Amino acid sequence: MKRASHRILIIGGVAAGPAAAAKAKRLNPNLDITLFEQGEFISYGTCSMPYYVGDVIKNHEDIITFSPEKFEKEKGCVVKTKHRVVEIKPHRRRIVVHNLHDDKFEECEYDQLLIAAGASARVPNKEWLKASNVFTIKHLSDSIAVKNYIAQKNPRKVTIIGGGYIGMEMAEAFSERHLDVTVIHKAGHPMNTLESETQAIVLDEIKRHGVQFIGSSEIQTIAIEGGAAKSVKTQHQSIEADLIVLALGFEPNTELAKNIKIRCGRFGGILTDQFLRTNIEHIYAAGACTEIKNIVSNKPIYLPLGNIANKMGWIAGENIAGGHAEFRGVVRTTAVKVFDLEVASVGLSSVEAEASGFKVVIESIRAYSHSRAYPGSKPVFVKLIIDGLSKRLIGANLVGEKGAALRADVLSVAIQNKMTIRQIAEMDLMYTPPLAPVWDPILVAANQAAKKLDKKILN
Amino acid sequence: MKRASHRILIIGGVAAGPAAAAKAKRLNPNLDITLFEQGEFISYGTCSMPYYVGDVIKNHEDIITFSPEKFEKEKGCVVKTKHRVVEIKPHRRRIVVHNLHDDKFEECEYDQLLIAAGASARVPNKEWLKASNVFTIKHLSDSIAVKNYIAQKNPRKVTIIGGGYIGMEMAEAFSERHLDVTVIHKAGHPMNTLESETQAIVLDEIKRHGVQFIGSSEIQTIAIEGGAAKSVKTQHQSIEADLIVLALGFEPNTELAKNIKIRCGRFGGILTDQFLRTNIEHIYAAGACTEIKNIVSNKPIYLPLGNIANKMGWIAGENIAGGHAEFRGVVRTTAVKVFDLEVASVGLSSVEAEASGFKVVIESIRAYSHSRAYPGSKPVFVKLIIDGLSKRLIGANLVGEKGAALRADVLSVAIQNKMTIRQIAEMDLMYTPPLAPVWDPILVAANQAAKKLDKKILN
Repeated sequence: MKRASHRILIIGGVAAGPAAAAKAKRLNPNLDITLFEQGEFISYGTCSMPYYVGDVIKNHEDIITFSPEKFEKEKGCVVKTKHRVVEIKPHRRRIVVHNLHDDKFEECEYDQLLIAAGASARVPNKEWLKASNVFTIKHLSDSIAVKNYIAQKNPRKVTIIGGGYIGMEMAEAFSERHLDVTVIHKAGHPMNTLESETQAIVLDEIKRHGVQFIGSSEIQTIAIEGGAAKSVKTQHQSIEADLIVLALGFEPNTELAKNIKIRCGRFGGILTDQFLRTNIEHIYAAGACTEIKNIVSNKPIYLPLGNIANKMGWIAGENIAGGHAEFRGVVRTTAVKVFDLEVASVGLSSVEAEASGFKVVIESIRAYSHSRAYPGSKPVFVKLIIDGLSKRLIGANLVGEKGAALRADVLSVAIQNKMTIRQIAEMDLMYTPPLAPVWDPILVAANQAAKKLDKKILN
Repeated sequence: MKRASHRILIIGGVAAGPAAAAKAKRLNPNLDITLFEQGEFISYGTCSMPYYVGDVIKNHEDIITFSPEKFEKEKGCVVKTKHRVVEIKPHRRRIVVHNLHDDKFEECEYDQLLIAAGASARVPNKEWLKASNVFTIKHLSDSIAVKNYIAQKNPRKVTIIGGGYIGMEMAEAFSERHLDVTVIHKAGHPMNTLESETQAIVLDEIKRHGVQFIGSSEIQTIAIEGGAAKSVKTQHQSIEADLIVLALGFEPNTELAKNIKIRCGRFGGILTDQFLRTNIEHIYAAGACTEIKNIVSNKPIYLPLGNIANKMGWIAGENIAGGHAEFRGVVRTTAVKVFDLEVASVGLSSVEAEASGFKVVIESIRAYSHSRAYPGSKPVFVKLIIDGLSKRLIGANLVGEKGAALRADVLSVAIQNKMTIRQIAEMDLMYTPPLAPVWDPILVAANQAAKKLDKKILN
């Protein structure tokens, strides 16, 4: 070590960046840590933004964990917002930073660098975003802009382009605001990564709440007049719109990394080892700019979620501070609220499992969230995806008004531990009439699946 | 086999008995199965009875899964209610049955016998039950009697003797009926098997709902006048009561078994092997008359719960039909609703863990059920009980208004898989603001515990 204190630079201030900074500083208070964020805000809950737009969460401050000032004060790190890192010079261990306040450029030296540059919304045509009423939902500033637009311009017709997680959450958000909502989606059903049965349930749910869903339609262009979008054109039709949200997914921010030949994967995300080191010395990466390992398929996936970014941030932070923490990957446990439903998925989808070479056996059931005699029980749909050879659970979808998402957590732990269906059928789950039935939906599904597997052996 | 069809006799018709009968008959339709039940009802949800008394569940039929007639018709087994088995003659493979309808005795031959005789409420003095207003809550007929008593006599003051699971549920039930409820309990806090912090939370909750709790008090006698109880006397005081419920726990019904030297354990329950065979040939046992293995301590415990009885019934039924199903024991995952709280426990208590020789490390936290920015999040108390040597989780308590019980299931699976605290801290649990926070309460607790364990090594 040349200097008394190690210099740590972190690119990106939303989730992984602040998590890493705080963790590293706590473990080693001598570190000299600076966080660069191109936007105005740091440390906010990206996943809470649809609820902020829907006005279920009133103020944008409510989804900010730390203001830059508070973070500096409480965590002892320097925070530079409106600072865009434009180049990494790995041989000189420097980065070039564009200060957006005064439009000046400066170079900063590092001993360790963390790239936590996050993701960007996928936008087919950047020109569209120049329209005053076309938005993406990625940065807190995007959400503030949408909410301000609603307050000021009182739009009636909203079109969401893309029927994935964010598309569904935004459909709910705009419905909360009593707007007419249309979702345009490439596939016939929303939410591509879920099982077809789940997709059908979700589609029913959004329709039941008055959302118009236009499936099997690809956006061709957005008609813009006088600086404002007027309609969305697909191959089939033209849909008038007062407000348009592009919800076509995210892509990792890797320009900086690619310029210095940091290795990226097939989804475009930065590849790291289990210590979150890139292939360039002294450079770590974490969060939505990286690909991560799915521990079921053992293959890299791209999964830009806030909790994973936070977890990776902690691990990177620990290692930057001299630790040896490992990020072993994810089962991929996801949940989303779609109006009255909890929609959860865990592990591989049946399509992915087939593609990964598993001999897939599936089983689906509907059972009740708690004893039917006790008021308020709700059906839970459970679909299990099983490797027919090892008899292990490799994936599941769960949907219902109550207790679907936390049951996905139960199955996540089962998958992580490579439990067979028989072992899952034997799990000791709680029972009390107001909270769970004698046979939990998970056990009902596992018992059914075990019977099916037994028959398959006999045949 | 001497006869074309095997004769299976089952003693007990509430949970394990019907489950075994249905399972065995389904696997082998040639079996000739007869179920004997001394009461009037079979196949009902014992755990739902407090909600029936509380009138949250209106009709007793709602907690009956099968009437005797329906069970006979749909499951193809003979059902004999009001038939009390009074003797087993293992050498002749016969039982002696007292037909309570006509007061006659008959002998029935079996090839295989299942004892699923259940449990009885613990009663310090049988004379007390002769009073018109003193009840236990074990059989459906008990619950019907209590509910009828309330309807007919309009009692005001209810005293519950015993502050365990049933005591808490009955306190809630009577509060739903707007009665004045007093709970008398031996220990200073309710719910002996839970952690002291959890007990304190439960005590606050019942007090908050107007229940009077008299702790550290043992019942000496019940004063009965003219066939009705007037008051309950403890060593300290006399409490007037219009209605008294004895909720002092349950004991296994093993008289029949003990008479023929079927081996029982230290809690008085029948001991079986993993196939649920007793030490007497051709005799199985299942449900609340048995002891079961706690897979965390590897010691037998007594745990008369409906879901476990059902599971054991299935396993016994499968084996009676010629299978080789195993009952491997329980983690002991329990949950109870106490007014607005979900109160759950899993694995060993810290007291049990110490007694079992573990070097116990504990950690407790309070975190939120979902993102705090999203309305409706509620604190969840989590206490982890850890084996300091192996670093494995061996028990936990979880309490909160939302999502405590299903999170106990998550930890049950973790314990079953012998996961270390570090592995639990790395679990991939879902995150979405309305359903779970970025750091699930389980992860918060596990991370805290991992830090504590790390420090303990350093010291």
